[in-house]
Amino acid sequence: MVKIGIIGFGVVGSGVYEVIRKNKESIARKSGDEIDIKYILDIRDFSSHEESHLFVNNFDRMVADDEISIIVETMGGLDPAYEYTKRALSCGKSVVTSNKELVATYGDELLKIAYDNGCSYLFEASVGGGIPIIRPLNQCLAANEIGGITGILNGTTNYILTQMIKDGQSFEEALKDAQDLGYAERNPSADVDGHDACRKICILTSLATGKKIEYKKVYTEGITNITLRNVEYAGKLGYVIKLIGMSRVCDSGKVNVMVAPMMILKEHPLASVEGVNNAIMVDGNAIGSAMFYGPGAGKLPTASAVVADVIDIAKNRGSENRLLWVKADGEVIIPQDESQFKYFVRVGAPYAEAKAQIREVFGECTCIDLYEDEFGFVTNEIAEGDLKAKFASLSYKVIDFTRIL
Amino acid sequence: MVKIGIIGFGVVGSGVYEVIRKNKESIARKSGDEIDIKYILDIRDFSSHEESHLFVNNFDRMVADDEISIIVETMGGLDPAYEYTKRALSCGKSVVTSNKELVATYGDELLKIAYDNGCSYLFEASVGGGIPIIRPLNQCLAANEIGGITGILNGTTNYILTQMIKDGQSFEEALKDAQDLGYAERNPSADVDGHDACRKICILTSLATGKKIEYKKVYTEGITNITLRNVEYAGKLGYVIKLIGMSRVCDSGKVNVMVAPMMILKEHPLASVEGVNNAIMVDGNAIGSAMFYGPGAGKLPTASAVVADVIDIAKNRGSENRLLWVKADGEVIIPQDESQFKYFVRVGAPYAEAKAQIREVFGECTCIDLYEDEFGFVTNEIAEGDLKAKFASLSYKVIDFTRIL
Repeated sequence: MVKIGIIGFGVVGSGVYEVIRKNKESIARKSGDEIDIKYILDIRDFSSHEESHLFVNNFDRMVADDEISIIVETMGGLDPAYEYTKRALSCGKSVVTSNKELVATYGDELLKIAYDNGCSYLFEASVGGGIPIIRPLNQCLAANEIGGITGILNGTTNYILTQMIKDGQSFEEALKDAQDLGYAERNPSADVDGHDACRKICILTSLATGKKIEYKKVYTEGITNITLRNVEYAGKLGYVIKLIGMSRVCDSGKVNVMVAPMMILKEHPLASVEGVNNAIMVDGNAIGSAMFYGPGAGKLPTASAVVADVIDIAKNRGSENRLLWVKADGEVIIPQDESQFKYFVRVGAPYAEAKAQIREVFGECTCIDLYEDEFGFVTNEIAEGDLKAKFASLSYKVIDFTRIL
Repeated sequence: MVKIGIIGFGVVGSGVYEVIRKNKESIARKSGDEIDIKYILDIRDFSSHEESHLFVNNFDRMVADDEISIIVETMGGLDPAYEYTKRALSCGKSVVTSNKELVATYGDELLKIAYDNGCSYLFEASVGGGIPIIRPLNQCLAANEIGGITGILNGTTNYILTQMIKDGQSFEEALKDAQDLGYAERNPSADVDGHDACRKICILTSLATGKKIEYKKVYTEGITNITLRNVEYAGKLGYVIKLIGMSRVCDSGKVNVMVAPMMILKEHPLASVEGVNNAIMVDGNAIGSAMFYGPGAGKLPTASAVVADVIDIAKNRGSENRLLWVKADGEVIIPQDESQFKYFVRVGAPYAEAKAQIREVFGECTCIDLYEDEFGFVTNEIAEGDLKAKFASLSYKVIDFTRIL
């Protein structure tokens, strides 16, 4: 019998409870042992819960109980999850989490504490909700040098963009719908400004490179400035706009990592990822490209990933925990100005008036002329710093530009 | 130092050699130990190979060598792979394989021998080439009861169907192209008749249910009868035709498992899987649906999966090998006649002439009238046995029917 404690009985925590109860027998078969919930920590009142006797409001009792070998941290946020996780790991109790903020911020330190104390810190649910991605990247693709990761990592923004593309809704309308459906928070900034996706691409890139990617240093652009004109230009050129978290390992060994709305070809496997789904494409030097697709959030999908980690530890499979990533000595991320793409650029002037200058500065390029007051064009692949230098030399206003994947 | 032997130096075996040499350092870092190839068994002459000293032509020497802890079986076929695998496992040497025929045929027995001898029998590469699917199904989705698996499991037939759909090639033309490109064998039966896909869906379903699915009992239909008319009807109705391997767990606990060309909606994630790629969608009672996509075959992708298994064993992660599936007591598969679908049916008569009778027998249904000598219609969801009984009552000839996913 493996006894576990759950800390944080919100959406994910209660999902973990539900999955463990519902699939009890098959989980026992797969773990080779029964998994039993001994405590649930939550400061709220659950006295009317059907198993109210499990609830405690004091972490000390859980962490001091020798019977508890695994703690499931589904609190979210840094405080007190960080302290609780450190205490649990320091006592040799393995911790399983869905807390991307904590993993992105203190993953290196927590992995080291786990390593030093012979226990595990597992976080499959921190990226891609239920989609298996941490373990596949870490184990299944272990024979590969990972060259790049490209993902739709946030379901809320993907839902909003899907509504804009499919139904012609404005950003504001689609956001309101997402809020009404419970896909977006009342304060949607973490999603729509790209911070959530940023933490996830940092976790994946840390895992792929073995070096901690500091998310505060990562160029992050959300979707709040995407308009239906952007969507229309993209569509006419054969693209869709998606919020992409991506990283590429450069020849120098440094990585180009960012979150931004990008134009991707309609035929690209990521283009057909709609609604609140997520998908992550991984490029390895043996496999080529593989993609992992599924529900990027939600109670039971996320719980599915958490419980898989619990089963792994119950089978002692987590015991060979390693320092998956460490703080790097020097700078790991290349400056955003060195990042290279093709770009779609909108110019705030009539096509007939400005085209000669655009050709002069950017050379021959595909132009698209849909509105009287502006037009767009596609550049060749150039560094972002060079792109901005060219913009500065124009006598016309650049409205915005979008990277093309 | 973990010493391994490779038996069979064909496409996959030489790929394993290449990946281990090329990614030596990162593999050592991930395994926690260096992986070294001590022997390569192949009856052909490799005296001019750069490491010709590794080649042996006698299995006895490899299996008797105590230094060898892992044998990579990339011979394919049953004979002598079956005997060699049994001998290796009986000596406590773990075996990693890409041999789907062997796993589908003798997986239960070989897993038992591995279990009894404290070693592992791993076969990630046997399904989906490089795509991680065995380990995700077995570990990452361990918290789920698996209700269904639906996959494009054969790259050759997917290439042919893609050419028919995209370029309007006939089956024969597309097959010839596939052969010229090396995607199809000179004798393409194993692929185009669905046997390869059948072995793969049997392996996946055995893993999901814990019960051996005998591939000889599985209804298997290939793509040799698919014509451009089938493709056109499907396209007009909003579908594409794909060769699908699928299994669904019924309420009785038995499974409905089959391989057949099916019509899938263009918006379905599987519909955009083109060329030689594979994709497998797994339905679990916690996660909902997840999909795994990537190259379904090829030297390095398949080697990537083989080497991931080798790394797993090197890390002692394979040591908790279990009896993933066993021979079932009774019948596991439901009769194909009980299988339920909607169907697209082609009738060999003019629409105006036959429509009244079709309505009489099948009720109101969507009809599509593209040719003078035939038309098609879509049925409601009914059991396949009932469908055939209705066909027998028609006075018009049914040309063919296609299941709708």
